[in-house]
Amino acid sequence: MTTLATTALHAADSPRPPRWAEAAERALARCERLARCSERADVLVRRALTPALAEAHALLREWLEAAGLEVRVDALGNLRARLEGASPQTLLIGSHLDTVPDAGKYDGTLGVVLALSLVEAMASEGARLPFSIEVVAFSDEEGVRFGRPFLGARALARGLGPDDLALVDADGVSLAQAIAAFSGIDEADVPAAVAACALRGPASDERADLLAYLELHIEQGPVLESLDLPLGVVTGIAGHVWQSVRFEGRAGHAGTTPMSLRRDALTAAAELALAVEEEALRSPGLVATVGRIVAAPGAHNVIAGAASLELDVRSVDAAVLERGLVAIEAHAESIARRRQLGWRRQLRFEAPSVRCEPGLRALLADAIRAVGVPVHELPSGAGHDGRVIAALAPIVMLFLRSPGGLSHHPDERVHAGDVALAVEVAAEFLRRFAARFAPEVHR
Amino acid sequence: MTTLATTALHAADSPRPPRWAEAAERALARCERLARCSERADVLVRRALTPALAEAHALLREWLEAAGLEVRVDALGNLRARLEGASPQTLLIGSHLDTVPDAGKYDGTLGVVLALSLVEAMASEGARLPFSIEVVAFSDEEGVRFGRPFLGARALARGLGPDDLALVDADGVSLAQAIAAFSGIDEADVPAAVAACALRGPASDERADLLAYLELHIEQGPVLESLDLPLGVVTGIAGHVWQSVRFEGRAGHAGTTPMSLRRDALTAAAELALAVEEEALRSPGLVATVGRIVAAPGAHNVIAGAASLELDVRSVDAAVLERGLVAIEAHAESIARRRQLGWRRQLRFEAPSVRCEPGLRALLADAIRAVGVPVHELPSGAGHDGRVIAALAPIVMLFLRSPGGLSHHPDERVHAGDVALAVEVAAEFLRRFAARFAPEVHR
Repeated sequence: MTTLATTALHAADSPRPPRWAEAAERALARCERLARCSERADVLVRRALTPALAEAHALLREWLEAAGLEVRVDALGNLRARLEGASPQTLLIGSHLDTVPDAGKYDGTLGVVLALSLVEAMASEGARLPFSIEVVAFSDEEGVRFGRPFLGARALARGLGPDDLALVDADGVSLAQAIAAFSGIDEADVPAAVAACALRGPASDERADLLAYLELHIEQGPVLESLDLPLGVVTGIAGHVWQSVRFEGRAGHAGTTPMSLRRDALTAAAELALAVEEEALRSPGLVATVGRIVAAPGAHNVIAGAASLELDVRSVDAAVLERGLVAIEAHAESIARRRQLGWRRQLRFEAPSVRCEPGLRALLADAIRAVGVPVHELPSGAGHDGRVIAALAPIVMLFLRSPGGLSHHPDERVHAGDVALAVEVAAEFLRRFAARFAPEVHR
Repeated sequence: MTTLATTALHAADSPRPPRWAEAAERALARCERLARCSERADVLVRRALTPALAEAHALLREWLEAAGLEVRVDALGNLRARLEGASPQTLLIGSHLDTVPDAGKYDGTLGVVLALSLVEAMASEGARLPFSIEVVAFSDEEGVRFGRPFLGARALARGLGPDDLALVDADGVSLAQAIAAFSGIDEADVPAAVAACALRGPASDERADLLAYLELHIEQGPVLESLDLPLGVVTGIAGHVWQSVRFEGRAGHAGTTPMSLRRDALTAAAELALAVEEEALRSPGLVATVGRIVAAPGAHNVIAGAASLELDVRSVDAAVLERGLVAIEAHAESIARRRQLGWRRQLRFEAPSVRCEPGLRALLADAIRAVGVPVHELPSGAGHDGRVIAALAPIVMLFLRSPGGLSHHPDERVHAGDVALAVEVAAEFLRRFAARFAPEVHR
C-alpha cells in the first residue's frame, strides 16, 4: 500500500542522510506488521481493549524494550513506554493504536511507530536527553467500540467517570467489564485502576512534570498534497459543532398545490445547505458541511412538510467558528421567515478548539526548514488525542501528507519519502527542544 | 366531517332552490354510509376487488336501481349503471370508489354519489334524455392494491394486458386471481372477461357511441379555497414526469477537506432543488417538486460523495412541461460542470397531459354562470380516470373546493353548500348538453 515515491518537488532541496530512509522503511514495515493485528481476517479493525489490540501491544513491547524503554499497559489499554533521562520531567510522544472498521494502516499507528523510530534514532546517537520521554499508544481515540472518542487520553487526564465506565459496546459489554477482562482484574477494582491511569498523582502539579505532547499523524485531508508538500505544522485542532436543524412547513400534493401556495420544508433545507457552503467559502479558516438532508414524508409526489439537515461546522479559530455559527443561524432564521416555516436546531456535539503551543510550533517549523522543506502551517479539522492532552501540557503536531487525501479507508497511504523526512524533522525538533530545555546540558 | 358552511362570499349571488341543498344532504349522507365499507374498522381503506368494494357496490346498486338504472359490475369490479334514453349514444358520468389507506370520504366517492344525484334530479323532472347515461364507479384509480393506477378505466378502454393481470398485491394475489375471486369465475376465463369490460365491441367505432365523460371531483388542492370559490372548471389533467436525478462527486472528511477542494454532491442536489423551484415559480402553468434528497454516505461528518433527488414536474400544457424539463436539465448540467461532478437521471414515470374538451368546458362554464357563481378555470395536477377515458371520448371535469386543500387524509372535507351548487351546476350542464345534442328534441 505504501509508495516509494520519487522525491516530491518540494520534498527537500538536498539529498538526506540514508539513515532516515532506513528508519522510514523499518517504520512502514512495522505498520504492515501491526495491520495484521485485527479483529477480522478480511479487513483491518482494531478497537479498544480487544485481543487484536493486545497482539499489537505484544509486538510494540518487543520493539520498545529492544530500544531500552520500560513498557507497561495501563487499565484503559494505553501502552506506555518510558525512557528515563536526566530529569523526571517528561516529553510525551505518541498517537493511537485503535482503528475504525475497514481501516487503513497509518491513521494513529504511524504516529506510534514513529515515536519508536525517534527514540531509536536518539539511542543510536548515544545521547542521554536532559528530560524523560514517554511513548504512549492510546487505546481508544476513534471511539468506535463504545461510541465515545478519546477514552484512552481521557484516562491519562483523569477525565473518566462512572457514566463512561457504564458505556456498552455492540455486544452489550460495558467499558468496565472490558477493562476487567483486558487487564485480568476484578470488576470491583476497575474504578481504582482507571484512576491510576492518570499521568500524575492527584496531589501533584501535572503541568510542572509534563513538558509537552508531540504527535506525528497523517493529515487525513488533501491540503498538503494539493500544495505538493510532504509535511505540515498543525496550528491547532479545530473547534467542532454538530447541530441538527429542522424546518417545518406544510406537506401537500406535488401536482395540485400551486407554487405560490407552498410551504416547502425541503427547499428551505436546500437553501440553508447552500448558505452554509457560501458562508464557509467566504470565511477563511471555516469549514462547514451539510452531509445529510432528510425530508418527510419523503415521497416524490409530496411537498415536504418537514426537512432535517445535519450541520458540521469547524474552525481552529474560536472567533471564526462563533461568527460562522451566528451567520448560519441568521440564514436559517431568514429562510424560515421568508418561507413562513418553523425551524429549530439541536446541538448534537460540541468541542472547543485547541491551539498548538506557538513556541513549539516555531521550533517544529525551524526543524522543517533545517531539512530543506518549505514550512506550511495548517489546522487539523479532525479531532486528535492532543485535544484532551492539551489540558495537561502544551501540544505540538506534525502532519504527513495523505495521498489522495484518503482517510478511514483501506487504501489510505503515505509516501515513504515523507515518512523519512518526518522522522528526521522530529529528531531535529527533539534536539532543538532539548537545547531550549537545558542549553547548558545539551550541546 | 362535512361542514354545513355558511354561504361563501362568491358562492352564489342569489338564494338557490332548496331541492339542491336536499340533494347535497342526501349525497353527503351516502358518502358517510359508503365510508363504513372499509377493509379496516379503524380507518377507511377500500382497495380494488375487495369485499369492502363489494359492500359499497351493494349499497350503490340499491340506490341506483331505485332511480331506475340497470346495474351491473364488470370483471374489473367497475360498477356500471345504465339509464336508456332516446338514443343508445351515451354520456358517461362517474368517478372512482377505491381509496388510499386512511382515506377521506370524498375523493372519488363524492363524484360517484353525485352522478347518482344528477340522475335522480333528472328523473324527478320526468325528462327523458335524448341520449343514454351510464354512471360508472371505477374500481381502481388510486393504484394502491396492485401498484399501478387506473386499472378500472383502462379495462373500459381495453388497455389491460397480460403484464397487468400478472401484477400482485402485498399478499401475493395476482390481479387475475383477484378478478376470479371477486367475480366468482374461473381464472382461465379472466382474460375474456376483462376483454368484455371494453365500453364497446372491438368492431365498433367507440367514439361515435360515446358522447362524453363527465366527472365531478374534489380539487385536492388549495386553489379554489384561496380564491374563495366553491367550484372550478378543469382545463385538463396535467402531463406528469417523475425522474430520479443523481449527482456523483467525491466523499471526504468534513473536518479536513478545505472548502475549495470539495466535490460535494449534496450541495449540488440542493442547488438543483432550488433551481427547480425557481423554474416553476417563473413558468405559469408549471409545478415542479423535489420531495426527497438522499445523500451518500449521509453522515453528518462526511462530505456527500453522491446525492439523489426525486423530481416531479407537471403541466397541463405539454409545451410548458417540455420547456420546464429542458430548463431543469440545463440547470443540472451546468451545476454538475461547475462543481466537477458526474450526473445522470432516470425516468420513473411519464404520462402525457390530457385537455378537457373546449366546447364542453364552455358549456360547464355557462352552467356555473347560470347559478350565479364566478367561473374559474384551473388545471388538475393530480391524475384522474379521465386521463384514460380521454382516449375514448371528450372529457369534462368540475372541481369542488377542498377545505384546507386537504386530500388523501381522513380530515378531507367538502362544504355542503358547495356540493349543492355542484349538483345544480351539473344538472344545468346536462340540460345544456342535451339541448346541444338534440335541439329539436329537448326544450
